[in-house]
Amino acid sequence: MNEVQLIGKRADSASRRLAVLPTAVKNAALELMASSLEENRDGIMEANLRDIKAAEKKGVSLAFIDRLTLTPSRFQDMVDSVLQIARLADPVGEVIRAWRRPNGLEISKVRVPLGVIGIIYEARPNVSVDAGCLCLKSGNCVILRGGADAINSNLAIVDALGKAAVRAGIPRGSIQMLKDTSHAAVKALLRLDRYVDLIIPRGGEGLIRTVVENSTIPVIKHYKGICHVYVDGEADLKIARRICFNAKVQRPGVCNAMETMLVQRKAAKRFLKPMLRMFMKAGVELRGCPEVRKIVPGVKKAVEKDWSAEYLDLILSVKVVSGIEEAIEHINTYGSGHSDAIVTSDYDNARKFSREVDSAAVFVNASTRFTDGGEFGFGAEIGISTDKLHARGPMALEELTTYKYVVCGDGQIRQ
Amino acid sequence: MNEVQLIGKRADSASRRLAVLPTAVKNAALELMASSLEENRDGIMEANLRDIKAAEKKGVSLAFIDRLTLTPSRFQDMVDSVLQIARLADPVGEVIRAWRRPNGLEISKVRVPLGVIGIIYEARPNVSVDAGCLCLKSGNCVILRGGADAINSNLAIVDALGKAAVRAGIPRGSIQMLKDTSHAAVKALLRLDRYVDLIIPRGGEGLIRTVVENSTIPVIKHYKGICHVYVDGEADLKIARRICFNAKVQRPGVCNAMETMLVQRKAAKRFLKPMLRMFMKAGVELRGCPEVRKIVPGVKKAVEKDWSAEYLDLILSVKVVSGIEEAIEHINTYGSGHSDAIVTSDYDNARKFSREVDSAAVFVNASTRFTDGGEFGFGAEIGISTDKLHARGPMALEELTTYKYVVCGDGQIRQ
Repeated sequence: MNEVQLIGKRADSASRRLAVLPTAVKNAALELMASSLEENRDGIMEANLRDIKAAEKKGVSLAFIDRLTLTPSRFQDMVDSVLQIARLADPVGEVIRAWRRPNGLEISKVRVPLGVIGIIYEARPNVSVDAGCLCLKSGNCVILRGGADAINSNLAIVDALGKAAVRAGIPRGSIQMLKDTSHAAVKALLRLDRYVDLIIPRGGEGLIRTVVENSTIPVIKHYKGICHVYVDGEADLKIARRICFNAKVQRPGVCNAMETMLVQRKAAKRFLKPMLRMFMKAGVELRGCPEVRKIVPGVKKAVEKDWSAEYLDLILSVKVVSGIEEAIEHINTYGSGHSDAIVTSDYDNARKFSREVDSAAVFVNASTRFTDGGEFGFGAEIGISTDKLHARGPMALEELTTYKYVVCGDGQIRQ
Repeated sequence: MNEVQLIGKRADSASRRLAVLPTAVKNAALELMASSLEENRDGIMEANLRDIKAAEKKGVSLAFIDRLTLTPSRFQDMVDSVLQIARLADPVGEVIRAWRRPNGLEISKVRVPLGVIGIIYEARPNVSVDAGCLCLKSGNCVILRGGADAINSNLAIVDALGKAAVRAGIPRGSIQMLKDTSHAAVKALLRLDRYVDLIIPRGGEGLIRTVVENSTIPVIKHYKGICHVYVDGEADLKIARRICFNAKVQRPGVCNAMETMLVQRKAAKRFLKPMLRMFMKAGVELRGCPEVRKIVPGVKKAVEKDWSAEYLDLILSVKVVSGIEEAIEHINTYGSGHSDAIVTSDYDNARKFSREVDSAAVFVNASTRFTDGGEFGFGAEIGISTDKLHARGPMALEELTTYKYVVCGDGQIRQ
């Protein structure tokens, strides 16, 4: 048996005991894990420094080094997030629904952990902490597979977490890290459907495609966030400007930032001139349809592939549309089913947009930037799904669970 | 573009309109579809006769011919099931949860259709009706792919259903049948992830494995039902006998029938003698562990592979265990996560069993035969899932849906 199989088997066997641990034991473990991170701060920071030096030697980008680096404040954020997870409600054991059948059978639909979850991610070491602790809180064993460049940081973190967990009574094997960072090892993990119930990949589109293509285990993911804001003819243009500016500029590198702005023809002239000036001032590169370019000269020409581009940058495509029908059609054709917004004062259009746009999150008069576990009030986030099966939109503790039916009777048999 | 791609594209485009149709339109369509089946009874029965004759020529088994055959009473059952589905509650539009955030955003989690569902099945023509109508009621387009041997029956049925649906205002392309019954066409369907959201295979283990191995679309399935009844030391043995007999004998060929009976050592002597005599009288072949064979001579020897066998027949493996721990361990090791029961009068053991057995349905003092959409009160069933993602246990209308978040604000932006 190789490393990957051993890890899988160990997780599977631990998962049965972890699944039924009382909330108090899991919470006490999380508190001990937070202290353990603090006690091992020096060792973790030193391991992180080794990763950074090795990455610099390889000549990676500054952005990559930034994602890899644990600053003192990021370290504190990691510790705080563990304590925060300890304070969240335990999803396990919730009775989702219960009813009695005419024959007297009492049926309960009860929330239970999934079992074993594999998390595949890239350079950020804080994912080891967040993902590891969210899985533990929801009663799942986790197999972490971080990027090769963060291996020393990750090993030091998982060592600190794992030892504390075991001291607190969590079954050994509940939090494990794949030490072998080869592609072969990832592929072996992705075929461990006998032991692993779910794979969550976090990272760029390339990583996610590789995972989906190689996995025999169910995968929940999102490829892209091509988010739209549609400014309706009946919009309050002051609100529209505020929302569009926020959706594009506040943090352009994330999946819930706006990539395409659609404007109803009636509002185009009045709205676009001041709006696009604001964007230009903020350094946003604009790519427009012919009508946009007629209204605001100096805007670059948008080509077909701009409508399906996830820029993740200060770039925006802009299009004038005839009305809500064309806006919805455009979004359902070019969008990625992530987050899309309408700005309108018209009741019927608000309802129509929220019903007919086929996305995980649909906003009326609010910024697309709110698609986030924390902003939704889930207290945490392990990822965002643009899939439709099992989980859609921000995923937190509840999305890491499944259910079982418990049926109680007094001797019922089927006729 | 070949037939499969055309069908996929047509379904995808119809799905947007079908998803937002009012319940009344869908129900009126279902009623018209039931009438249309009746009006086309002669043509459908004639097509079925052609299928039967062709199958007989090929020399298939009598059981196969039986599954293929539409008797007058089975035809009536099909019509009734359409009317029954019309009367079920529409799952679409249910607000699963709604809350207000401190910043005033109002978030609703709303139930919506999945989109396009592919159903792959074997000889039974009634699946075309059940699956087609359940998908329609839940707002999903359906692509049906029945077995080659039932092609004439299926085409006649789907023609009758589809024309009536369109007459009632359902978008063309909502119910389609794959006419090409080649393996290549199925494989092409399984890779249509651009248009199809979910595949549900219904049939034997071989069919299901082929589907899982070739699909790039999420699949919900169950491979096997290796169901257990554990008779605890503290059981009411009269109830235990009734439940075990029902679970094995009432309908041995289905997935929720008992395949292995576990008996606690303390109860073994008193329980096994009369119980196994009852089974023998009913023609059940028994395969036991050494202890069972000591208590009741004449029982065949169970070998290792008996513990993971799905007999689907009047055969039962029987094992004496030391207690609830061993019973749970046996079930979690050899079972298929489908349906497992305990018979006990002990409160703690009832709780322990229902928490620690990792199956879709866990029964206390009731027969495993109750795992069924109808028996659970769902009014219908499109299949049973032993998967943990999205749906577990009996699947009906709700399990054919997903959700979206609708977020309403008055200009909120993210800080």
